[in-house]
Amino acid sequence: MNPVFRRQGILFVISAPSGTGKTTLCENLRATPDFIYSVSCTTRLPRSGEVDGTDYHFLSKENFLSRAHNGEMLEYALVHGNYYGTLKTTVKEALAQGTDVLLDIDVQGAMSIRKTDDVMVRDSLVDVFIMPPTIEELEKRLRKRGTETEEQVQMRLRTGREESKLWPLYKYTILSGSMEEDLIKFRAIMRAERYLSRRLELNEGKSA
Amino acid sequence: MNPVFRRQGILFVISAPSGTGKTTLCENLRATPDFIYSVSCTTRLPRSGEVDGTDYHFLSKENFLSRAHNGEMLEYALVHGNYYGTLKTTVKEALAQGTDVLLDIDVQGAMSIRKTDDVMVRDSLVDVFIMPPTIEELEKRLRKRGTETEEQVQMRLRTGREESKLWPLYKYTILSGSMEEDLIKFRAIMRAERYLSRRLELNEGKSA
Repeated sequence: MNPVFRRQGILFVISAPSGTGKTTLCENLRATPDFIYSVSCTTRLPRSGEVDGTDYHFLSKENFLSRAHNGEMLEYALVHGNYYGTLKTTVKEALAQGTDVLLDIDVQGAMSIRKTDDVMVRDSLVDVFIMPPTIEELEKRLRKRGTETEEQVQMRLRTGREESKLWPLYKYTILSGSMEEDLIKFRAIMRAERYLSRRLELNEGKSA
Repeated sequence: MNPVFRRQGILFVISAPSGTGKTTLCENLRATPDFIYSVSCTTRLPRSGEVDGTDYHFLSKENFLSRAHNGEMLEYALVHGNYYGTLKTTVKEALAQGTDVLLDIDVQGAMSIRKTDDVMVRDSLVDVFIMPPTIEELEKRLRKRGTETEEQVQMRLRTGREESKLWPLYKYTILSGSMEEDLIKFRAIMRAERYLSRRLELNEGKSA
């Protein structure tokens, strides 16, 4: 008896209304070495300091729509007038190799992934919703970012209020606290999911 | 929007072949304040240092069997010639109040709980198997304890080998490492289970 467990990769999906602090949370999670972070594609313009290929793959609208049309996107959605999406190949190759993947996508994107016909993707999916503590706190966090106009802030707040109702669709719901608390909670989910017996396959080593 | 989540208690069940270090793990977990540890009943004699009502409820065989006969036991089993069991009342009262319960029971006991007709117990059940790293390590840990005769050690090893095959019956399987590693892993499971959306019920506070 010398048990070694093997398993396929897990596709962690994290969604939250904008302003919840999801982007910072994901940046912190990227410091965790045991999974890959799948960089999304978008047609929106880079914000100050954002790097192509690290923060997003910044694509022209034509390029994006052509890839979507060719079935290269695992999911994509139009959010606040811009397209956001995830390339299928990156995700599936990692999962097949037993590597876990973290996807930072909005509620529409998460809905498309849940509906996918791809069995590997569906079986490996673990979606987590980060719930803003209060609408006042959400507004505070949005304004603190200072990257949006008043009109954009109001639009994001309306969206946030609606999106917050979608938590029951997710496997897990984390009530957002401090960044440190959110990190601890999300990491606990990542760990626990790896110990689910149904994911494990026993490879007995040399018998004693 | 001022989300507050409520939920019922979770019944965490931890099983492992004897010698895996489960008892020490549970002692460490008892330091964690946010659940109650359900003290089992047994007909075996106390080991040196064991306290009645803390380590076990030490019952006479007659008392134990009479309670089992009256349906007061959530589960009970005959292990190595002694009876072990869990009183139903303690567990159910805690769960109803939203308090999580930790049960340290053997594989037979876990099997009985899985088969229970009590919906509340079944819905709240989260069972975790602690897998001994190797049979050699199991033997080493058993001998280190020094409380058993050679014959008892051999019997526990045989049982351990058989019981190790039962991990797929459990929701989670942890491959036992150091005590600290096992603690971190088990605590991650406890946390994650509390964030499962299906357990949560939203109580909106005063609207903003």
